[in-house]
Amino acid sequence: MNVIKIGGNVLDNPAQLEQFLTDFASIQGPKVLVHGGGKIASELSKQLGIEPNMVNGRRITDADTLRVVTMVYGGLLNKNLVAQLQARGCNSLGLTGADANVIPAHKRPVTDIDYGFVGDVESPEQVNVTFLASLAEQGLTPVFAALTHDGQGSLLNTNADTIASTLAVALSRQFEVNLIYLFEKKGVLLDVEDDTSVIHHLQPQYYAELKKQGAIFSGMLPKLDNAFAALQQGVKAVIIGDAAEIKGIATGEKAGTRITL
Amino acid sequence: MNVIKIGGNVLDNPAQLEQFLTDFASIQGPKVLVHGGGKIASELSKQLGIEPNMVNGRRITDADTLRVVTMVYGGLLNKNLVAQLQARGCNSLGLTGADANVIPAHKRPVTDIDYGFVGDVESPEQVNVTFLASLAEQGLTPVFAALTHDGQGSLLNTNADTIASTLAVALSRQFEVNLIYLFEKKGVLLDVEDDTSVIHHLQPQYYAELKKQGAIFSGMLPKLDNAFAALQQGVKAVIIGDAAEIKGIATGEKAGTRITL
Repeated sequence: MNVIKIGGNVLDNPAQLEQFLTDFASIQGPKVLVHGGGKIASELSKQLGIEPNMVNGRRITDADTLRVVTMVYGGLLNKNLVAQLQARGCNSLGLTGADANVIPAHKRPVTDIDYGFVGDVESPEQVNVTFLASLAEQGLTPVFAALTHDGQGSLLNTNADTIASTLAVALSRQFEVNLIYLFEKKGVLLDVEDDTSVIHHLQPQYYAELKKQGAIFSGMLPKLDNAFAALQQGVKAVIIGDAAEIKGIATGEKAGTRITL
Repeated sequence: MNVIKIGGNVLDNPAQLEQFLTDFASIQGPKVLVHGGGKIASELSKQLGIEPNMVNGRRITDADTLRVVTMVYGGLLNKNLVAQLQARGCNSLGLTGADANVIPAHKRPVTDIDYGFVGDVESPEQVNVTFLASLAEQGLTPVFAALTHDGQGSLLNTNADTIASTLAVALSRQFEVNLIYLFEKKGVLLDVEDDTSVIHHLQPQYYAELKKQGAIFSGMLPKLDNAFAALQQGVKAVIIGDAAEIKGIATGEKAGTRITL
């Protein structure tokens, strides 16, 4: 099973998105799509006179902003992705973490920053894998918007990377799972200025060496730390690569950065 | 199985909505919720500077309006209804007709009026009953937003009453289905000025008599004609009643107008 997360860059470019969806629809076997959509949410916020408020790269989600991300992630983007996958013969289904209680979460506790209606997911053990397995059995492809819920009636804005890794870990109980993060680079780069310097295979020892040398772009470190954490919880491989190369990545051809234990 | 449609009046009143959801969650057996949300869509349209354009009580859905209803019906309302049902122990799941290709439709052909991105559903035979039955088996309650899709990548704004009756007819192949339309009156009234003049039981012969006498409010006639059409296609009973009385309606107590063949 492939759990594939796409970011804003793909969603914002209609031509890229169409190609990606065509490629995604053609991937054999069970698969899950997870999407963000922060830029489009920010645009709608501005149109409605709500100023986006970011702290440390995370959106502060007040009640008005929660409405906006619910509309944009859960409605506009999610349902259009589903309709476009249907047109490509991929029988998909749009979900948030609230639907079928797939991803229980809780509101992030207030410490020095109050993130507002932001969700931290409960452990992968609480993911409704039974439901996801039944979808896979029926040949249905879930498409997840980056929303969860607190079980008390409130939706929560939730990091899409975290949703993807939580689902991947949970599904590893029943499936052999590849967790694939797509962005606009060919993979993890040895030299951030050189797009051809892709690291094709990253394992713990090599990663430790590269970190010691300071060879990995600092912005990539949390993603890689999370990747190794997912592997330790049962995910078979984490692949970081270019959305334009999803076909090669999914078939296991040399594309992107393959991270394994 | 109960297929229950709620309209704008319930959705617009938070106190009524909370009570309705508590009552709905307590209904035993498989059930489906279908909702509209036109008033809230109109409000968002106005905030975004899109003037709602209604012809014969139907919304003309241009591309901008389709974006709005996708956000409001598919995102804001649908996902909040799901989160609120989850809080009440009802394991629900938000869907449009595009999800799992449950309700295939086509864009309404342009005749004298171009309704824009408005969907006319294909026949109930094309509804994905297998998927809905699998949800029912898993104890999951689908919540439908009034959107379908054309199978070619476009979502379509679709009348919620039609979605409810299409689902009810389709599900009658596998379930004994009550189709319940909830609004702000106690039922179909003999005297539109007298809320106590509810017709408790309506059958074809009595309906024909009442029509001949001109005793039924003309605005109710299309709904009743559709009700009898649904009965002729296998629905067991159609009930029209007050959202505040859903518990009595669902248990078969004397509430609302019960329509049968």
